[in-house]
Parts: sequence; structure tokens; C-alpha cells
Amino acid sequence: MTMSGGKVDPGGDGRDSGSAKVTELESLRHRVKELEAENAKLLSLISSCQCQQMEVKHDVSVLDPGSLVRRSRKARKRADSIPSHLVSKRYIALKIMYFGKRFYGFSAEAQMEPSVESEIFKALERTRLLVGDKKESNYSRCGRTDKGVSSTGQVIALFLRSRLKTPSGDSEAHVDAKVNERGEYDYVRVLNRALPDDIRVLGWSPAPIDFHARFSCSAREYKYFFWRQNLNLSAMDIAGKKFIGEHDFRNFCKMDVANVHCYTRRVTFFEVSPCQNSHEGAQLCTFTMRGSAFLWHQVRAMVAVLFMIGQGVESVDVIDTMLDTTKIPRKPQYLLASEIPLVLRTCEFENVDFICSSGAAESLRTHFKNESLRYQLESVIFQEALRNCLPVGNEKSSCNGVEKKKKGAVHVPLLSRPTEPSYEERSAKLKSRQQETCHV
Amino acid sequence: MTMSGGKVDPGGDGRDSGSAKVTELESLRHRVKELEAENAKLLSLISSCQCQQMEVKHDVSVLDPGSLVRRSRKARKRADSIPSHLVSKRYIALKIMYFGKRFYGFSAEAQMEPSVESEIFKALERTRLLVGDKKESNYSRCGRTDKGVSSTGQVIALFLRSRLKTPSGDSEAHVDAKVNERGEYDYVRVLNRALPDDIRVLGWSPAPIDFHARFSCSAREYKYFFWRQNLNLSAMDIAGKKFIGEHDFRNFCKMDVANVHCYTRRVTFFEVSPCQNSHEGAQLCTFTMRGSAFLWHQVRAMVAVLFMIGQGVESVDVIDTMLDTTKIPRKPQYLLASEIPLVLRTCEFENVDFICSSGAAESLRTHFKNESLRYQLESVIFQEALRNCLPVGNEKSSCNGVEKKKKGAVHVPLLSRPTEPSYEERSAKLKSRQQETCHV
Repeated sequence: MTMSGGKVDPGGDGRDSGSAKVTELESLRHRVKELEAENAKLLSLISSCQCQQMEVKHDVSVLDPGSLVRRSRKARKRADSIPSHLVSKRYIALKIMYFGKRFYGFSAEAQMEPSVESEIFKALERTRLLVGDKKESNYSRCGRTDKGVSSTGQVIALFLRSRLKTPSGDSEAHVDAKVNERGEYDYVRVLNRALPDDIRVLGWSPAPIDFHARFSCSAREYKYFFWRQNLNLSAMDIAGKKFIGEHDFRNFCKMDVANVHCYTRRVTFFEVSPCQNSHEGAQLCTFTMRGSAFLWHQVRAMVAVLFMIGQGVESVDVIDTMLDTTKIPRKPQYLLASEIPLVLRTCEFENVDFICSSGAAESLRTHFKNESLRYQLESVIFQEALRNCLPVGNEKSSCNGVEKKKKGAVHVPLLSRPTEPSYEERSAKLKSRQQETCHV
Repeated sequence: MTMSGGKVDPGGDGRDSGSAKVTELESLRHRVKELEAENAKLLSLISSCQCQQMEVKHDVSVLDPGSLVRRSRKARKRADSIPSHLVSKRYIALKIMYFGKRFYGFSAEAQMEPSVESEIFKALERTRLLVGDKKESNYSRCGRTDKGVSSTGQVIALFLRSRLKTPSGDSEAHVDAKVNERGEYDYVRVLNRALPDDIRVLGWSPAPIDFHARFSCSAREYKYFFWRQNLNLSAMDIAGKKFIGEHDFRNFCKMDVANVHCYTRRVTFFEVSPCQNSHEGAQLCTFTMRGSAFLWHQVRAMVAVLFMIGQGVESVDVIDTMLDTTKIPRKPQYLLASEIPLVLRTCEFENVDFICSSGAAESLRTHFKNESLRYQLESVIFQEALRNCLPVGNEKSSCNGVEKKKKGAVHVPLLSRPTEPSYEERSAKLKSRQQETCHV
């Protein structure tokens, strides 16, 4: 996209300065568009950064007037003939699956599209199950998974249109949670027809009026898939079990000092286990961990350190050391494990029982089988590439004389690495910035 | 991406239309400055990133007003101290693998980025193996695969820098094809370090001066991967073998009347065969076909019809009918098979013998195994979703009373479908358009 340069406008007003201004106007407009496109591109590049060097969530400004990236929802709403406060509604919980790879996270707040949440709301609008707008729907979500992270059990809650009339006929028009679901919209089926292939509703449930997808959640379970290769599974299992219990996980997360002041969390379950899948000789395995709540990037940080232990470059004791925040007040720098294999598997609630019609369930199963095969086919192409490599022993060239041996990456012990600022140091810095701002 | 809108500038020049333009001019200039500053900020943020997640070297352009998105190659080329015509060069053929999903085809001509070709040339420049520019390199390519199509045996030819001195020392500085490769650059290794994960060089060969990647090619082989499911493999094999021989394939391609006037092609081999892979009970299979050359979309069209035969909704005889262009002068409308499973497996040449050093070969094999596992993991997430579907029998709701049975797609027999214009009709239309243009 290069500058168009000044296009001569033959219909100019005749005066030199006038037509020059029009030309400059056009070229400036074009330049603004180019820059906005480049800006959006850079923002999306930045969002893929996983190192601690860039505080993406907090720093990137959306140059808004116009909000570069966030799409206007007003353009999509059709006028309803019945005023929304008279439409029969009920408070619903939805269980959601998504393959997170192409999304900028679950949440639409970061204003980078697409997000899982924004796709869900598009489907809700398209199917007219959303009455009024998102703000009026009392919407809440259980977890806020990051870019690339998937889920098979995310939960959201909000008011949706109901087919059932309210028993009392009051103008609030809320269908009581205890009302029998017979006759209700098949929310799962309706929504799944409107969602993209990588998002599905797995079930729905009436929700009590005090239900909150985040605060009513009693437990969350994550799974992290990986290929065994040469990793020492039992060492990783021993190490991972040290996470069980209540601990300060500040050395296993990305601190968000402005909003999070307590880094203590409870892990109730941890396990490394092989899955049934094996592929071309490689054994699929998974980490499974449960807790009431997890910090930002906590699972990926835990997994990163477990991999080092599995590779034999760190001892299982490094977990105990890193959980001891008096001994290690500053987090050593290390890369997070990749986000793609991470799955928020399930979120648990006391008073919610998800249901799904048999028709919708059958469609779901067919869909997941087909998608699994479709993604598998991509892997097959790399296997074909492997088969088409030149045969071993085809070495007529001894390259450039000096056979460059590939350098193995040298592992720097975690406890010898540069560290990040401690919670106290970050907190103090934030306070002083806030004070400066106040004094301006 | 919306425009910033007009910011009111109180210092306008007073005349209505003139001042509106000046106001807008000033606000646009301001906006441009804002955006340039923001982009510079984002770029410097990006440069502080230390993780591998951002393919900084491939995507981020150096912002200069001339070239926002397409990286200006001039900016990146360091001035060579040796003039290019004196640099030792040789004419090389490269065997290329790529996973086509994210590319807009192999060829850079369509000017939609990214293309496989443009990525290869970026790597050639980055490694300084390209001497001078693309135009001077006598570049040719064997096949022009479409968007999404992969290859394990694409071939290109061009002049590349050589480590060897020319025997004759002439100013043309071409290393003779017959010169022993010992001591030459390890082209495969050098390029593979600079290429993205989905493109690899599999081997290189000296090429005789009259070699042309397209015209010297004696045969091309395609593979199309698919899951067996309920398809009738033997019917598809019988049907596919009818393609063998010399036929007019106009009903099995997308006609390009401006450039292609003869739709006769020779298919020398066809086979349906199961692969060793099986996945969650599904059997992987492949179509393999060879020919001297294929028309645009020919393989995908052939596969589309074969699938109909495999599903039992068309008879094997429909192949004979569609190959009879006197009987069927106009192509029935049907969708092409998906592009992702299509692989240009190999291109054959008489006088080319690809070589690869053992070090480069080992890296390639490791890479393809890793990529295969990485893509496989994505499929695993959908299997996990399948496992997390609500159990069968969880049917507390009988949906909305009326159980909507999913309608199976009705197959309209090929020979009953609407048709596209014949070659003659398209040709006549093109001629009359050309005549109109001439008369303007």
C-alpha cells in the first residue's frame, strides 16, 4: 500500500490553491488510511508478544476517534417491533466451547478483533436471542482466557429471549428459573447455527437471579496438552503436585499490580497423564490442574517450569523455592509455555445443570469429529513433506567445508537468571506515577 | 477503520468552502502526525520484544512514506562492495516444500500478500544469495499453485550467489553446472534458517543454462488427501482411471479463455489408495494423479466429481460423459473440492538431481516431525471438545416442541444442472469486448 501521490483532479475549482488543497486532502486521507491500517497491524503483532518486556494490555492505546479496530455494533442491530422491556426474557447460563487460535482472547474489552465474546454476541444478535443490547443483558463470564487459549467449558450468563410466557405476566417479564424447560427455545441449536466453526454452545441452563458466571464459580480446571518426547513424566508429576494447596504464585504469573494485590491461590488438583492418542510414535500427554481461580498466565508459567523439570535442566525442588516468596521475592525471567495447547476444560457451579437437546447434541458431536479430522489433515501434509525429503545418504555435497554444528540452546538455571521487579517495587512505582499524574 | 472526522480549527481562513478544506487539511495533517508518532512508539515497543512469538523480521515494515506494508527492499539492501555482475553466480534449481494454507497462492503476481514466492525472495535477499534483483536472476517456477494449495516438490530456478570461483574467470562469472558441488554454499541449510515454518527448501541442483522450471518439466504429480468415511473407494478408482489418457478437460477446470485455447491434457496415472494413517477410527486415503500439465483447478474439479461418485450420487459413467465435449459442450456448475488437502507432490525433470547435505536433511526431518505434531495438537482440542459434550441421554428439553429434522442436502444430478458458457461462447464474448475496446 503505497502513497497514491497527488492525483490530479480535473474537476477542481480552477484556482491553483484550491485544487492543490483538494489534491493534498486526498493524499492526506489516503495516508491516514494507510497509517491506520499499519497501526492496526502493529497492534495485532504486539498482542502476540508473550514476553514480559511489553505490558501490552495496559500500554497500547487505541487511537480512537473512530475506534480503529473495534467494530460498531449499532450498525448491526435491527429494530424490534416489540419494546424490549415487554419481551419475555430469562436469565440463562451457556456453556461454551472454542478453539482459541484465531481469536485475540475471549474478552472483547481489549478491543482487538476478533474475540470469542464478540463472535458470540454477533450470533446472539443474528438469532435475535439477545433482547436489547449487551449492557442491558446482565452479562457475566466465568474466565477471561487469553489470545490463543481454548476452552471446552467456558460459562457465560445473561438474559435471553424466552419462548415461554411469564406465569405472572408482570412487565418485568422474567421467566422463573424453576419453570420447566419444555417448550423453550433450543438455545444450543439456534446459536450453533449462527456461530463460526471454532465456537460452539455445549449446553444451557436456567440461572438463578443471583447467579454470576465469575463469582458463582466454585472451581476451574485447565488442561495442557503436550507430546511426551523425552520428558520425564514422573519428575513433572512430583513437581506439579507441589503446587497443590494454598500458595503465593507471584513467581508463576504475570503480575497485574494495579488490580491484583493478593497472589495467593489454591490449587486443589494436579496430574500428569498420558492420553490414549499416539501419533507417528509420539505419545500425547496432558497436565490437568484445578483451582478456585488462577492468576494471569499462571498455568502457562507453571507449565513452562514443569517442562524444564521434565527436560532435566531444573530440579523438582525449584518449585518449592519459587513458591517461597521470601526467598525469591523477584520472579526470574522465563518464557511462558505456548498458549495453543492450553484448554480451560471446565468451570463448576453449585446450582447449574446444563442441558442439551438430542438433536443439538448430535450436531455437536458430528461437528467436532469433522473439525478434528479437518485439522488432522493439515498435520498429514507435513508427514507427506517428511516422506518427500531426499533420502538419507544423499550427501553429494559436504556443504561448505566447515560443518556447522547446530548449537543447542544453553539453559540458564532459573535461580541464576535476571529477575523482574518484586510486587513491592512495582507497587511503589505505580503509586509514584499516580501521584505524579495527580500533581500535573 | 474510520476516519478521524473533522476537528474544528478555529484558525481557519474565513471562507466557507475554503476554510472547510483548510480545517480538514489541518486536522488530517494532525492526524497523520499522531498516527506516525503512535506507529513509531509501537515499533519501538516491538523492538524491545524478546520472545519468538513475533515474527518481527518478516512482517514489520520500516515506516517510510513510500512503503507502509510492503517492505522496501531498497531499504534493506546493504550496498555491496562488489558490483553484482562480478559476483560469482550459478544457475540453480531449488526443490521447495510449503504448507499453502496461509498464502495467497505460490505466485507473487496477484500482488496479494503473503505469497510463497515473495517469502522465498525475502529469504533469498536476507541471506544475500540473490545477487541483484529478481528480474536479473532469470527466475522461473514449475507450477503456479493456488491459494491454500500445498507442495512437497515445487521447483524454481534462478541464478544464485556461488562460493566457487569460475574456472574461466570471465566477467559473466557463471559457475558451470558440471562443477563439483564440493565447497559450494549449503543452499538448503542457509535458506531454511531464513524461511518461515511453513516453507522449506528440500534440495538444490545445478541447472543447465537452458533449464526452465516450467518448460523443462516432464511430469507433475498431485496428491489429494481425504478421509474415507463412507465413500466407495473402488467406484472412485474405476471412475478416476477413466481420466487416464489424452482428454479434453474443459468440463473439469476453470477456463481461462484469454490465455488457454486448448483444453486437452494427458493424465498418465491415477490411483485411489488408503494411507497408513488412521485417526479415531477414520481411514486416511489419497488420490494420486500424474500428468504432463494440469489446467486451472483441474485436480479439484476432478476430485469434486469423484467424491460425488464415491457418495453414490453420481455414476462412474458421468466421467465419460463429461469428457465428451461434443455431448457436453457446457460445463455443469459444481463446487470445487477444498484446496487445503491438495498437494503438488513432485515435479519431474530429466537432467536435474537434487542434493541435500546431511545436516540440512536432519534439520528438515526434525522440523517436519515437529510441525506435524504441532498441527496434530490442534485436532486434539476438538477431540477434547467431543469428550466434553454433554452425555447422550441428557435431554431434559424436547426443544421447541417441533423437532426440526436436519435436512440432508439434496443432490442435483450433474447433467441436470445449470451450465456455464461453452468455450466458443466465452471466446466470442471476449473477442467482441476486445473489439469494443479498440473502437473507443
